[in-house]
Amino acid sequence: MVKYPTGSLTHYTKDQTDLLHPRKQKHRKDVVFSDRGMNLEQQINESNKYYLLEDIAVVHKKPTPVQIVKVDYPKRSRAVIKEAYFRQASTTDYNGVYQGKYLDFEAKETRNKRSFPLKNFHEHQIIHLERCLKQKGICFTIIRFVTLNRYFVTPASFVIEAWRTPHKSSMTLQELIDNSVEIESGFQPTLPYLDAIDNFIDR
Amino acid sequence: MVKYPTGSLTHYTKDQTDLLHPRKQKHRKDVVFSDRGMNLEQQINESNKYYLLEDIAVVHKKPTPVQIVKVDYPKRSRAVIKEAYFRQASTTDYNGVYQGKYLDFEAKETRNKRSFPLKNFHEHQIIHLERCLKQKGICFTIIRFVTLNRYFVTPASFVIEAWRTPHKSSMTLQELIDNSVEIESGFQPTLPYLDAIDNFIDR
Repeated sequence: MVKYPTGSLTHYTKDQTDLLHPRKQKHRKDVVFSDRGMNLEQQINESNKYYLLEDIAVVHKKPTPVQIVKVDYPKRSRAVIKEAYFRQASTTDYNGVYQGKYLDFEAKETRNKRSFPLKNFHEHQIIHLERCLKQKGICFTIIRFVTLNRYFVTPASFVIEAWRTPHKSSMTLQELIDNSVEIESGFQPTLPYLDAIDNFIDR
Repeated sequence: MVKYPTGSLTHYTKDQTDLLHPRKQKHRKDVVFSDRGMNLEQQINESNKYYLLEDIAVVHKKPTPVQIVKVDYPKRSRAVIKEAYFRQASTTDYNGVYQGKYLDFEAKETRNKRSFPLKNFHEHQIIHLERCLKQKGICFTIIRFVTLNRYFVTPASFVIEAWRTPHKSSMTLQELIDNSVEIESGFQPTLPYLDAIDNFIDR
């Protein structure tokens, strides 16, 4: 994985106007416009790093759960895991604390242009979000439409309801527009998702 | 790792009186009294399972962070991680949500009888607790004195102050008594640490 130093502008080639109105650029096919090549996970990790260093919030991605079976301890060298298996996660990928509030969310990308397939959310994630909602956590999803370059922060309550609706296989773009706070990628943070959370808290 | 079904009494051999007054037993050397052989991590995991199933709180242990280098995908069989390394964690082991509040804690055991060595807390854990405190999370440690069969839930602020005191190498048992809520192991949950948290919240 390429490491992006926080706030690095190395790969940035657009002028200041684009910074202020990034969405205006979305039809210019000649500009490489995929946020310095980051995928959604990298964008969120970068944002969390920024929020952490600025004392704005403490949010971490949970490590991939792995069942370790065999470890070698070579002399004068660090331990090597020689056999391990991926385990099913029992939670979402991200949680943390922001101004005393518990945050919990899952992030997903799609290359679709008109809807987000609900099968991308796994049952354990839905159940976990339901449980955290019962405990009055602030629970949401971040969905990125890669080809549209659009990002939606959606309350988990809406996603859960859609997921639990029989025969409903996706959330349409319009449903997401109507039920989310849309955010734009930028710098510091790369993806200012807490702006959307402020909006949820104010409601 | 042995799996303990929630609330299993299989290995339990004591009578009901002991259940109600577990601490009275602490000098009886002939009784196996280590909570059905569980270590502190298992006790907390069992308690978290109980809290989860009873909709009391959602707290999970974070997986061990592992850097995966090589994975085999054998035909008709699940993926096998063939080379991986332990990574340094950047947080504490446990976090979650309880009645809208963010919980964050670290759990440690000692076989000492009179003090708890501060070197058992790593710098990244102390820094993480400091950050979560700034965000108004409820941060604490659970310390078990194995040979005394005593458990202390201590506010992170006290532990951080002790850890940051020059030339201070340990917290004495008396300091922990004076600055903690002591809890007793039992059943359902195995370790009712949220009772101590209620106490913190009430203050």
